[in-house]
Amino acid sequence: MLCLAAMAQESLFTGPAPVSPQVNEDGTVTFRYRDANAQTVLLRADFMAEGETAELTKGERGVWTYTTPESIYPDYYSYFFIVDGTKQIDLCNAFIRRDIADLTSVLLIPGAGDGLYCVNDVPHGTVSKIWYPSETAGCDRRMTVYTPAGYEDNPTENYPVVYILHGMGGDEEAWVTQGRATQILDNLIARGEAKPMIAVFPNGNISDEAAPLENSVGYNIPTGVRPKMMEGSFESSFHEIVEFVDSHYRTIAKKEARAICGLSMGGFHTLYISINNPETFAYSGLFSAAVFRNAEESGIYEDLDGKLAGYFAQNPELFWIAIGKDDFLYKNNTEFRQMLDKGGYAYTYVESEGGHIWKNWRTYLSDFLPLLFNNL
Amino acid sequence: MLCLAAMAQESLFTGPAPVSPQVNEDGTVTFRYRDANAQTVLLRADFMAEGETAELTKGERGVWTYTTPESIYPDYYSYFFIVDGTKQIDLCNAFIRRDIADLTSVLLIPGAGDGLYCVNDVPHGTVSKIWYPSETAGCDRRMTVYTPAGYEDNPTENYPVVYILHGMGGDEEAWVTQGRATQILDNLIARGEAKPMIAVFPNGNISDEAAPLENSVGYNIPTGVRPKMMEGSFESSFHEIVEFVDSHYRTIAKKEARAICGLSMGGFHTLYISINNPETFAYSGLFSAAVFRNAEESGIYEDLDGKLAGYFAQNPELFWIAIGKDDFLYKNNTEFRQMLDKGGYAYTYVESEGGHIWKNWRTYLSDFLPLLFNNL
Repeated sequence: MLCLAAMAQESLFTGPAPVSPQVNEDGTVTFRYRDANAQTVLLRADFMAEGETAELTKGERGVWTYTTPESIYPDYYSYFFIVDGTKQIDLCNAFIRRDIADLTSVLLIPGAGDGLYCVNDVPHGTVSKIWYPSETAGCDRRMTVYTPAGYEDNPTENYPVVYILHGMGGDEEAWVTQGRATQILDNLIARGEAKPMIAVFPNGNISDEAAPLENSVGYNIPTGVRPKMMEGSFESSFHEIVEFVDSHYRTIAKKEARAICGLSMGGFHTLYISINNPETFAYSGLFSAAVFRNAEESGIYEDLDGKLAGYFAQNPELFWIAIGKDDFLYKNNTEFRQMLDKGGYAYTYVESEGGHIWKNWRTYLSDFLPLLFNNL
Repeated sequence: MLCLAAMAQESLFTGPAPVSPQVNEDGTVTFRYRDANAQTVLLRADFMAEGETAELTKGERGVWTYTTPESIYPDYYSYFFIVDGTKQIDLCNAFIRRDIADLTSVLLIPGAGDGLYCVNDVPHGTVSKIWYPSETAGCDRRMTVYTPAGYEDNPTENYPVVYILHGMGGDEEAWVTQGRATQILDNLIARGEAKPMIAVFPNGNISDEAAPLENSVGYNIPTGVRPKMMEGSFESSFHEIVEFVDSHYRTIAKKEARAICGLSMGGFHTLYISINNPETFAYSGLFSAAVFRNAEESGIYEDLDGKLAGYFAQNPELFWIAIGKDDFLYKNNTEFRQMLDKGGYAYTYVESEGGHIWKNWRTYLSDFLPLLFNNL
């Protein structure tokens, strides 16, 4: 008889490790970190208030422990430890998310919440990594495409499309790994709260073919600021993506069946793609968007006043703005709304708690998607 | 003007970090680890001999350093540190691979090698996560499907299919993330060394719907040994996967256009799926396979002699076995080959250096794929 344990694949190191994180029966969460030599171990998690940390206590065999004083509301969180001033992920936890070159550990708590971020027992869409040719970039580029459950089995049905854009330092994987966007789509569609739709997640860094390790650059440590970022190339080449999607998927290829949204830099992209193409998108969503632009000269960014007038003259179905009260772009968004108000343009504004964080962006997406395509 | 740096997405911690790993101009690689309190820091990497480690030297500001004495051959490696006896990944390196619940850091060196593991400037296939209904499991289950470049643009063309199975503790993501299988397929097809084919990567753990964080269990730390593992359910339900693929993709739905292969437990699955379905697969590849089975009673595993006779009587195109000299399953494979020799069955045997490691499995896949479907 074979030894099952010995058959594990190339598990280069296996030592007994503490359990962390541990969701307790009362809803509190216990975190553990092993380091016999450390002087201080702190926890920083995005269920805490801005800037807050919690101190772990050293126990037997060099294992540090912290249990939250109260239950943690079911959601999808990220956290890390600070060990003698140096960031460390939770090495007892195999679930890691990458943001730019930054790693954090993941805590998923299912339960009482809306559960939109969970994989529930509902029909699941297909999530594909595909490559489209970009003349602007001079290469093929990778994007993520979600087709809703039933797409393959209904070959005569056509679907509306939402384009969902990442922020600075993100890539075509960010909304899927950190944003749980495909779970949110599956669940909203299954509950009848959103229309079945195709979702497209492009890579907004026009100088990159694809996410790190998935491009031909080889081994490069990504940085947040990329070449050719926010200088108009991505926005002006966006028609390449729309044309590829319309020619390779069963879309409803008209304005009333197209939406675009994005977070932070992706909200900036959403604004300028929308107003430069007033006949392409009927729905636009700006999530914690960086709305003004003075850094680079590009025709794409010129004449904001005139373009807004031209855009709103085409009667978009929805122009939706959301931002958190603590977001560093709050003032920027307030000024932008004043500009919209001055023009007398119709838009929807949602103000949430919190700042420039994924928890808000997941919520904004969950609130935005049900508003789309209800006139089709 | 907006501060670009401040716009980075929720980068919860950014401190100056040492560069690691660093591929030097002479092909050596430098590893760095920061820990002012550590007593010893060791490096373990899979370019080293079995069991070997290298000691890092402590320098200024608590940064430990090691440079390899010789250049490292271009390939896709994994490594980690052992800090005072505890495993640590490289926190300067955003690229992490998960194997079961075990994390390792990734080092990709492009260059003089065959480059099959690299994303090269060639047409890329589409990689999809899809869900298929399993009556056996009583739920929908997730798998990865690769369709070759050109699949979408040639709607009347049909393709052969290779089913590629993971080992114990792996899942539908293992061959793609650790095995670089889709890069290998892209490159072999672009070079004309393999036929354009569809590749299907199922989840061989029948008790799981999907990889961790992608299933409805919620937050669970995966373990290598899963319920209902190697007791016949996966093998006996494999027809569900083949039927789904044949009905949802443009396959050539016949034996001569179907191959199956797998590593370790996946090689075991390959053997029993092949011999229980002698009219389904023309090509079978056993990579470091666990070939004998005495633990569980199942009709699937009974009468190995008789089933081998029946299978080889149907004249498979290729029965291919590969294993490393240092593999803990080497003896097991030798005994299996003696059984095949005794029956007078035709098979191909490849013996490599090394053990039960991904480097070998990538090589075996790269050698196996060009042998497929050449009679079509």
